[in-house]
Amino acid sequence: MLSLLAALLQMQPAPEIPSEQVGSAEILEAARTDDRNWRALSPANTLYMQVNGGRVVIELNPALAPENAAALRALATAGVFDGGTIDRVQENYVVQWSAREDADAEAEGDDAPVTVPGELARDAADMTVTAVPYADSYAPRIGFVNGFPVAMDDSAIWQTHCYGALGVGRGDDVDGADGRELYVVIGHAPRHLDRNITLAGRVVDGMEYLTVLQRGTGPLGFYETDTEKTGITSIRLASDVAEAERPGVEIMRTDTPAFSAWVDARANRARDGWFVRSAGAIDLCNIPVPTREVSEEE
Amino acid sequence: MLSLLAALLQMQPAPEIPSEQVGSAEILEAARTDDRNWRALSPANTLYMQVNGGRVVIELNPALAPENAAALRALATAGVFDGGTIDRVQENYVVQWSAREDADAEAEGDDAPVTVPGELARDAADMTVTAVPYADSYAPRIGFVNGFPVAMDDSAIWQTHCYGALGVGRGDDVDGADGRELYVVIGHAPRHLDRNITLAGRVVDGMEYLTVLQRGTGPLGFYETDTEKTGITSIRLASDVAEAERPGVEIMRTDTPAFSAWVDARANRARDGWFVRSAGAIDLCNIPVPTREVSEEE
Repeated sequence: MLSLLAALLQMQPAPEIPSEQVGSAEILEAARTDDRNWRALSPANTLYMQVNGGRVVIELNPALAPENAAALRALATAGVFDGGTIDRVQENYVVQWSAREDADAEAEGDDAPVTVPGELARDAADMTVTAVPYADSYAPRIGFVNGFPVAMDDSAIWQTHCYGALGVGRGDDVDGADGRELYVVIGHAPRHLDRNITLAGRVVDGMEYLTVLQRGTGPLGFYETDTEKTGITSIRLASDVAEAERPGVEIMRTDTPAFSAWVDARANRARDGWFVRSAGAIDLCNIPVPTREVSEEE
Repeated sequence: MLSLLAALLQMQPAPEIPSEQVGSAEILEAARTDDRNWRALSPANTLYMQVNGGRVVIELNPALAPENAAALRALATAGVFDGGTIDRVQENYVVQWSAREDADAEAEGDDAPVTVPGELARDAADMTVTAVPYADSYAPRIGFVNGFPVAMDDSAIWQTHCYGALGVGRGDDVDGADGRELYVVIGHAPRHLDRNITLAGRVVDGMEYLTVLQRGTGPLGFYETDTEKTGITSIRLASDVAEAERPGVEIMRTDTPAFSAWVDARANRARDGWFVRSAGAIDLCNIPVPTREVSEEE
């Protein structure tokens, strides 16, 4: 249902980018009603993680980590994470989990890969990026590609370790990961990890099922006993799940004027009533990519 | 007890700043053994919040928010938060709590203030700042004052909304807060709040008792029913607590060469073994201020 405000906005001469007089809530509300601003999640690039009584929805990032995205797709289809465990929850840092212990042997019979190369960055020339026109502490340029926050230098582009980023754990060998140890960022963006370890996606819904987990009391937040670990019911590729059981989460397109207007509004919050001062800028990892429930629109 | 590594470092000609060849873990370990790098918490500026089965230790920031620090001191001594409730836990944002409902009337008999002015920034000329020599998305200059992350422009200085920052809730009136609604940042730094609402301290220990709380399902993460709210056993000023019951947490001094070496090491992580690339920079809110337990040193 359209709110009165959204209806009024639609009665104005249609602006490509909403007026600067409009605050962030109004921009988002107006954007919600225009289907061109939204996209469905591709079932081939979406994982559902059933854990801690809820469903965490993860979007894979094949544009920036194609081999790792393919590996996670295969591992999910092989079911190696079903019965896996959350092994580590480090305050202001990461939640980390592993595949079921006996899953290695089973998966060898499938097409699941044994090791996955590190994909720390890609050639920037290959990517179309929606620029975020503000300074970043870590990189010369920042922006978004298909909903993923990215940073760039003159030649390379990489996904950034923002809140909710999904990474593929590794030991000392950058190319030695097996895709069976994954982590999600649950604290202030640990951007020092950028280009040191592969990011293969991000959580788009359900972070709250991960962030409330008890922190581990061992070094690096690992649990000290098996009984403290939370079991993972399953991680499924959306393609492997009946269509009726897929949640209707849609993601705001980040290559639209509406998204750029949203970023601009978030950088200039004094347009919103409560604020008395705008920063005139915003940190890349402080830009939420909005979602909408499809059912709301029907 | 000194580790072998720390002992070896001490045998070298004493450097004011440890060699750039040394990684962050080694710098911290060496710093731990030198009492000049640490300070105790002042009991007059420390709050103990007993909640969710643990103790959250908060350091007030009288240098940057003197009137708000004084108000929180008085309110804690008056006991207004004992029996208060956590009313709001918003994912990737804040935990917010309020004083006991009948505390207003009681506190009026004490010296507790009725309203507290907003202290959004101070005169930068009055402050000695340890500079952090990296770019910030929000402000021309950044650094630390007495353990608190700060940002500055040509004339003003303010505490920043990093993870763990303690804020004083307000309505639309910047000067209308009553000090009885407080919040702590539990997500990626919402720096757009800087200079819009008063920060009066930060959590130095025990964040994990706040961050694991179930997120509220109402708008802005407020709980929808009273039964969902977590009760606050007490918030006490450390001066009001017997000395034997004060935890032995010490804070690394941020005005020391050791702290600057720590920041430098965290910005250049490739000196640490696992990393393959250094950012050569670090975001202000990604710099943890180390703590130590005094009992460990005895």
